[in-house]
This record gives sequence, structure tokens and C-alpha cells, in this order.
Amino acid sequence: MKIALAQLNFFVGDFDGNLDKMLKAVDEAKQQGADLVCFPELATCGYPPRDFLEFDDFIRQAEKSVGKLAEAAVDIAIAVGSPSRNPVVEGKDLFNSVYFLADGQVKHVQHKALLPTYDVFDEYRYFEPASEFNIVEYKGKRIALSICEDLWNLGNENPLYTIVPMDEMMPHKPDLILNLSASPFTHSHAKERLHVLAANVQRYGLPMFYVNQVGSQTEIIFDGGSIVFSPKGTVYEEMPYWVEMVKTFDLDDVIEDKQTVLQSKEKIPLIHDALVLGIKDYFGKLGFKQAILGLSGGIDSAVVAVLAARALGEDNVRGLLMPSQFSSDHSVNDARQLAVNLGMQYDILPIEPMYNSFMDVLKPHFWGNPFNVAEENIQARARGLLLMGVSNKFGNILLNTTNKSEMAVGYGTLYGDLCGGLSVLADVYKTEVYELAEYINKDSEVIPENIITKPPSAELRPNQKDSDSLPPYDVLDAILYQYIERQQGPNEIIAMGFDERIVRRALRLVNMNEFKRYQSAPVLRVSPKAFGMGRRMPIVGKYLS
Amino acid sequence: MKIALAQLNFFVGDFDGNLDKMLKAVDEAKQQGADLVCFPELATCGYPPRDFLEFDDFIRQAEKSVGKLAEAAVDIAIAVGSPSRNPVVEGKDLFNSVYFLADGQVKHVQHKALLPTYDVFDEYRYFEPASEFNIVEYKGKRIALSICEDLWNLGNENPLYTIVPMDEMMPHKPDLILNLSASPFTHSHAKERLHVLAANVQRYGLPMFYVNQVGSQTEIIFDGGSIVFSPKGTVYEEMPYWVEMVKTFDLDDVIEDKQTVLQSKEKIPLIHDALVLGIKDYFGKLGFKQAILGLSGGIDSAVVAVLAARALGEDNVRGLLMPSQFSSDHSVNDARQLAVNLGMQYDILPIEPMYNSFMDVLKPHFWGNPFNVAEENIQARARGLLLMGVSNKFGNILLNTTNKSEMAVGYGTLYGDLCGGLSVLADVYKTEVYELAEYINKDSEVIPENIITKPPSAELRPNQKDSDSLPPYDVLDAILYQYIERQQGPNEIIAMGFDERIVRRALRLVNMNEFKRYQSAPVLRVSPKAFGMGRRMPIVGKYLS
Repeated sequence: MKIALAQLNFFVGDFDGNLDKMLKAVDEAKQQGADLVCFPELATCGYPPRDFLEFDDFIRQAEKSVGKLAEAAVDIAIAVGSPSRNPVVEGKDLFNSVYFLADGQVKHVQHKALLPTYDVFDEYRYFEPASEFNIVEYKGKRIALSICEDLWNLGNENPLYTIVPMDEMMPHKPDLILNLSASPFTHSHAKERLHVLAANVQRYGLPMFYVNQVGSQTEIIFDGGSIVFSPKGTVYEEMPYWVEMVKTFDLDDVIEDKQTVLQSKEKIPLIHDALVLGIKDYFGKLGFKQAILGLSGGIDSAVVAVLAARALGEDNVRGLLMPSQFSSDHSVNDARQLAVNLGMQYDILPIEPMYNSFMDVLKPHFWGNPFNVAEENIQARARGLLLMGVSNKFGNILLNTTNKSEMAVGYGTLYGDLCGGLSVLADVYKTEVYELAEYINKDSEVIPENIITKPPSAELRPNQKDSDSLPPYDVLDAILYQYIERQQGPNEIIAMGFDERIVRRALRLVNMNEFKRYQSAPVLRVSPKAFGMGRRMPIVGKYLS
Repeated sequence: MKIALAQLNFFVGDFDGNLDKMLKAVDEAKQQGADLVCFPELATCGYPPRDFLEFDDFIRQAEKSVGKLAEAAVDIAIAVGSPSRNPVVEGKDLFNSVYFLADGQVKHVQHKALLPTYDVFDEYRYFEPASEFNIVEYKGKRIALSICEDLWNLGNENPLYTIVPMDEMMPHKPDLILNLSASPFTHSHAKERLHVLAANVQRYGLPMFYVNQVGSQTEIIFDGGSIVFSPKGTVYEEMPYWVEMVKTFDLDDVIEDKQTVLQSKEKIPLIHDALVLGIKDYFGKLGFKQAILGLSGGIDSAVVAVLAARALGEDNVRGLLMPSQFSSDHSVNDARQLAVNLGMQYDILPIEPMYNSFMDVLKPHFWGNPFNVAEENIQARARGLLLMGVSNKFGNILLNTTNKSEMAVGYGTLYGDLCGGLSVLADVYKTEVYELAEYINKDSEVIPENIITKPPSAELRPNQKDSDSLPPYDVLDAILYQYIERQQGPNEIIAMGFDERIVRRALRLVNMNEFKRYQSAPVLRVSPKAFGMGRRMPIVGKYLS
């Protein structure tokens, strides 16, 4: 039997587009001689559809797509993920299902049993878990169908679920396992995925075909990287990251114990490629071509400019340099040199006149209070206003350049430098931004060296430096990582050897600034715990604040 | 047996404050002669704690509170909601539990079985459902302990769960049902709650004591309204909405069939009171006293000003009147009259100089393109900047005045009139804002009549009216209600008799403007489907857009 994996880039709610893409992949798989072609989880509607699943109209559209695919399932079988209706009145109204289509009709439907409901996942919000487990027989092979999380209750010390779906399948004596996934990228996901899938293959001794979607849906990025395992537990093939591909495998070959060479799973290059894809799909799927961003001469905006140029082409990225009376000469020079290096358009718009006109109006209402964060924020907001003005006039999307460390402690101005349609770096700690810059410069100096070496500063008051009000970034990032990614409390973090005063202040800043993150742009997610949908915190809360 | 219900206002993460409040209520209940005092769901940590539940440190604090309450459970028993740990490694790590404390120790723990995971609720994100059901015996009475949703799988046609926890309790022959709740307010919730609780009492023929928390946690408002049912299905007592109270009931009296007079459940007065409490708690719990808002002379800002003055006192509300060259005379006059009527401070800050200084800088970069939304937005953003400037200087919270109709179709400027720390009206349709204004004016003219009667306008270009670009609000709101609250698709809505072109355009606007709502302030939730946590939509999606 020959099995094709169709690693494709779907678009949430684009039923016609997704169907068209799948019908073409069916033809391609046929040309490759495949007996069966497999599409990812919820491929008809795209993953994650979120609350669109609550619309009956949306489900009808997905059913229509399944019907069309069934018609195309002639001389080839199709396994495709799609929502299906729960006929039982008690429980949720939907299942997250895989349809097995052959001979022009639906041969079998298997529902997902393990419904991820943590971090960015909300599946129990919509779906009833499967309570029945059956295999489907096709061309003499007994196939166990599973969906993404169904395989993830093995290989970790603290399983999230009380059942293991494949254990329920085994009495039916399957010959192979198919897994249809929509498994979001994080910089550690590719390694974890191999570990978890290997744990399954080892437990069941069956060949496994894992197909994952590729592409970005708002903040969530999918890397593809579909995998075929031989029953001995070795990786027979790993399909490439970041690209669409239909590839057919002969089951007889897969059963042989061949070890392929795996792709690099190095963190910084993966983050780089993920962010480029994230920008590209955000613009492409929304129907926008051009980005605008503020170039401060700092490292964050420099890295975002490079990533945007790589995603959209340098002709589609425009930079505004907006110096104030507090900006140093090198800021403008460094920003200009970066724009020249990238070959992107830039304009210089000093903000002093706008700042002065605001201060003229506001001064009488400030009642003689001294210069403070209010005046600093006015500068940042004047910049936001200029960027949004050009963005609105020309239909560009403003890219936000805040990094994760700043976003965590609230070192940014709401409606100022926190403006933007998409936040590129807000899941990348400042120390990782430096690593990204070094990676970008590995072959030649794209980012001017001075941008990388000078001490970071917001330049909102004379001689300001980030280190005036924040601990050094290597210390801060280590504390933030323990709190945000590892959910460690103050006592645990202090016990690791960090200064108590710094720890308590950092955690307090994180919690106090939830109100800023609540109103921030969607953040391209590259870590296991990004700000946004995956981290849900009260704004009004007293814990550690 | 005498049972006290402690309807209290908790604060998420304020373990010391919540504990202190409960210890005082224990004393009060003792003074009232109670044998048992009942606190709401997750009272130790406040509801909803959200992802703080993922912090072991947070759970330890809750356990400490339970320990202190157990020590206080002498000569009185205590039923209190708190998270507890799941000792089984498979499954989620926590339960949502009620602890029954007596004689200085934990007598019984019952876990919640039905975990709401829809709208604003995420309970399966954190908790494993109960699989065991037992009663506790105290002073000769057999008590069935249940938590909020546990009673909600009765009384509706499409039950969300496959089990009914009280059915599992009944073989243990309970004498009464306790229900510890944190049941969020909506304008229809009080009626639904009575219906659902009555369905339970009718099915089991037992007296029921339902205690609910009161107060607001970020966007979610709790009305209190705790209820005691006689076993005959009549309401023995309904505790008041919006206030804290500890009240003791004699079980022997409750068993008598006495029908109390129920509080009014009229929609607009309930919304009014809920919003006032929502503002009050948002400020009070964050430690802020003063609000600022823009007074445009329109109805939305007028209603918000009144609600804020009622919540915080008129001395704590400051208005900025920020006319532009497009503002009509009556706008300033109407806004000034409102401020005078309320007795609140106001200042007039014309925005023309700032607008001009931006246009001077931007004009060369606009390449001769005609006046469009870019220039309109600059006006709105200049206002946002002024409001935030004063807010930052004096530590006021800016109140956002956007209504639900505008928020739905994106009729507002991001970083402009969408600025604010709290959105007061974004769950109130424009037609309901008029009803609120009429209600506010029922005894005397608080809001100047001209504000209510003139046609709504954003006044961002000459002679602009909302009706230039939007359908009449009664039509628009009816369509929005069907799409947002009732999840009806375009075909269903058109079949109701609405104009097809208007329906398709309205739905498209709603979906296209998800990016604005994503970055908007938290919205005080008063309807069953508010923007924010309870409505999760992709920004990048093609469905109906």
C-alpha cells in the first residue's frame, strides 16, 4: 500500500480554497501512485477555527467539503480531518473527527478522544471526546486513525488524560497508525514530537504516518515536518519544515528499518524561520502586501525589519525614523544604515513639533507637576500616531517590535510603541533577540554592528538606559522564564539563587502590566508559553502584585 | 439546623483579604446562631483565578486558607470552595472542590463534576471532573454538596454533559442540597438561574441553598442574588443583588412552602446596576479612585459619565471636551451641560493645533492622496493622546465609551476612541444605550435631552452622521444580535426578513474588525455573549469576510 501525506497550508474559514487545495493534492497523490492520501486535522475548515465552530452555518460548509472530497475518493482513499455532529443530545454538539473516504463515500469516522484544553488550545470548548474506537480496513490493511493529541498521553511523566486511545484500538489488531495533526510550532516542539511519537511506536510496534499542517493562523505557526516512522521506532522520513508538500511512501519500504537524517532542531534558526513564515502568512491571508515599522536604531526594530524584508521583500517594508530631542545621533545613523543595508524605503520625521503642540495644550492641565512617565508616553504615542497615519493612508500593516522581556514587565507605552497589527518579537526574550541578530549577521553585516553592541535605551528622557530601571537582561530573562514558562513562584525562584528584591519586583511588574498585554497585538508564538490566547490572566488580581 | 449563606465580594489572588472576610463572616454566622456557614465557589482564591491556577505557589496559598478556616470551624461547620490537588497522576492536576470543615478539621471534600468550558469559562483547562459522589452527614442531616454548574445539566433542551451529578448523589439519600456558586451576571441570568434551580428542586424534592459571589472581577460581574428553595419548588428567599450579606435560615422554616416576593428582573435596571458595580470594583480592586473620559456631546459618553459618577462619586470623574474643526456647537454645549448637571470637573482642549502639527509633518508623506480615514483617525488619536496624557499625569483610569454596535462593526479608531482601561458600554447595543439614558432620566433630566434626541455622529468630517455609513441602529442591532448572541449564519438571518445586502455587509464588518476588538480594553459583560474572553475568533480568517 502506498500512502501520501499532504502537508498543506490551510486558511481558517476558507472552505473553497482549502477544498480546492485538497482536490489538487488528491490528483497529485494519484499521479504518485498513492492508494491513500492523508490531510491534517480539521483541514476542511482550517485549524484553529475557534468560535466559528459554534455557527451551524460553518459546520454545514465543512460537511459540504467532506461531501465533495468523498466524490473525489475514487481509485484512491482519503483521510481528512473535519468537525462532525454529535447525534446524542447529551454532551457537546460536535466531534473533532477524521473521515475515511473511499469508493465515493464515507467508509468510517473516528472521533478524537483527547481534547487539548490548555495553553492556546480550547478543544473541550467545542468537542465531545470519543468514547468508541474502531479501525478501518482498506486494501487488506487494518488502519488505526488518530488525531493529534490522541497520541500525546504517552512519553511524559504527568499525563493529562485518564485514557490512552491507541490502547483502546489495539484489540482490533491494526497494521499501521495514521495521525492527522495540527500541531503548533514552538522552538522545542520538533524534539518533543519525535519523542512522543517514538514512545507510541515503541509501545505498539506499528509503522506510523504523521501528517501536520504548515503555515500560520493569526498567532499560531505550524511547521509541517510530517513524519513517517518504521515499526522499529526509527524515523523513516521527516518532511521539510515550512513548505507545502505531497509525498507518497510505500508501506513495504517503511517497514524496513531505515534511519533518515533529521533536520536541524536548533532553536534560533527555527525561531527565525517561524517568524518569517508568521509574517508572510499574516499578510498574505489578510490580503496585505506592505509593512511599516518604526526604526529606532535599536536592536528590536532592526531584527523585525530584517524578518519583514525576508517575509515580504524589501520593497514592501517601509521604515519611519522618528527622532526626538532625546534621541542620540547614532540612533538615526544606525537606523539609516540598516535601511540602506536592507534596501528598504525610509523617511525621517522628527517628533518634536507634535510633542510641543501637545505639551502646549496639556501644560495648563498638568498643574505644574514635574516631567514623568506622562511626557515620556506622549513621545511614544506621537510616534504611534505617525506610524498609524501612514499605515491608514496606504493600507500598510504596522509591525510591532516589542520583545518578550519588555512585554513582560510593561516596559512599553500602550497606544505608543505597543501599537501594531502583529507583534513579531513579543515571544522572544531580549537575550534571544541578540542571538537572532547574530544569526542574521552570520554571513555578512545586515544589522549594523553598533546596533548590536550599544546599551539598549528607550531614549525618552536624557541619557536614559534600560538598565536604569530594569535588572540586566540576562538576569531578568532567566527570572521571567522561570515565572512565565515554568510557572515557578517567588520562593522557588529565589531558592535558585536570584536576588529576592529583584525577583519580587519582576513578578510584580509582570502581574501589574497585564492590562497592557490585554490590549496588545497578537504575538507570533514561538515558545511553549507566549503572551496572548495561551496565557490567560486576570487584570484585576492581587496575587504577587 | 440553621444554615448561613455568605454572599461576599472576593478578590482574585487576595488570599489574606478573602480569608479575613470569611473569618469575619464565620463570626457573624455564629452570632446569628448558624450551625453551618456556606461560602461561594473558589472563595479562597476568588473566581475566576484563570492561569494563576497553574502556579503551585498559588495552590499552596489556597490550601493554607482552607487550613485556617478549618481551625475556625469550631462550634460551626463551614462549606467553602477552593482548588484541591488530584492525587492520581493521570488527568488534570487539580479539582474544583468544596471543603466541608467541622470540629477544626476537613470532614469531607466533594469535587465539581461539570466543568463549564464555553463562553468566558475555561474550567476543563485546569480541573479534572469528579468521578465520585458522596454526601456528608452533619448534625443528623445528610447534605449533598454541589458546585455551580453541577446543577445546570437540567432544565434545558440541549444538555452539555452526559451525566447529572445530583442523580449520582440521590442513592445516598440526602436531606438537602447546597450549591456553592460563582455564577456570572448577564441581563437574562437571574431568570435562567431560577428556572434551572427550580428544575432541580422539582426533580429531587429537596430544599436547596444556593450561595453566589457578588462583585466584579475584571470584566465579569457577579450579582449575588443567593437563593433558598423550599422542597416544594417555591423560592423561600432571594437575597439582594449587588450587596454583600451573611444571612441565616432555619431549615425547618425553609421546608414550609412559603413564596417570597422576587426582586425585579427587568433588563435595563439590571444592566445599569451591574455596570455601576463593575466600574466600582474595577477601580477599587486596582487601587484607583479617579476616572477620566472624553465627553463628545454624544449619548455614549454621557451615559458612561453618569455611571462613573454613580460608581465613584462625581468628584472623582473628570471630563475632557476636545472639539475639532468638524465639531458642532451643540456638541460642546451639550457636553458642558452634562458635566454641569453631574457636578463633575471638565476642561475644554481643542484638538486643531495638534491635528495641524501632525498634518504638517505627514502631508509630504501622504503623496497628495485625498482626505480619508487616515485624517479621521488622526483626530480620534489626538484625543486619545490627550486623555492618556492627563490619565498618566494624575493616575486616573481612562474609561472607554464605545458601545457594542460600534465595537461589532469596527466603527471606532484603534488607539483613538478605542483607548481606555475599561470599556463600560461595549456589551450594550446602541439601542440599549438609549434605553439606559431614558432610565437614567426617569426622574429628572440628568442627561440633556438634546444628547438623546439628536442623530448620532462621529464628527470626524463635515456634516458626518453614523447613518451615512451604517444602517439604522434598530436594524443593525437586530442583525448583530442574531449573529453574535444567537450564532445565526447569513442565510438564517436573511430568512428572517432582513435585507440581504445589509446582512452580508454587517457580518463581513464584524469579522473584518476582529483585529480592533483584539486590542480593546476589557468589556464589562452584561449579555450572554460579550466581546472579550467569551467570544474567541481568529483575526486571520476567511469565513464571511
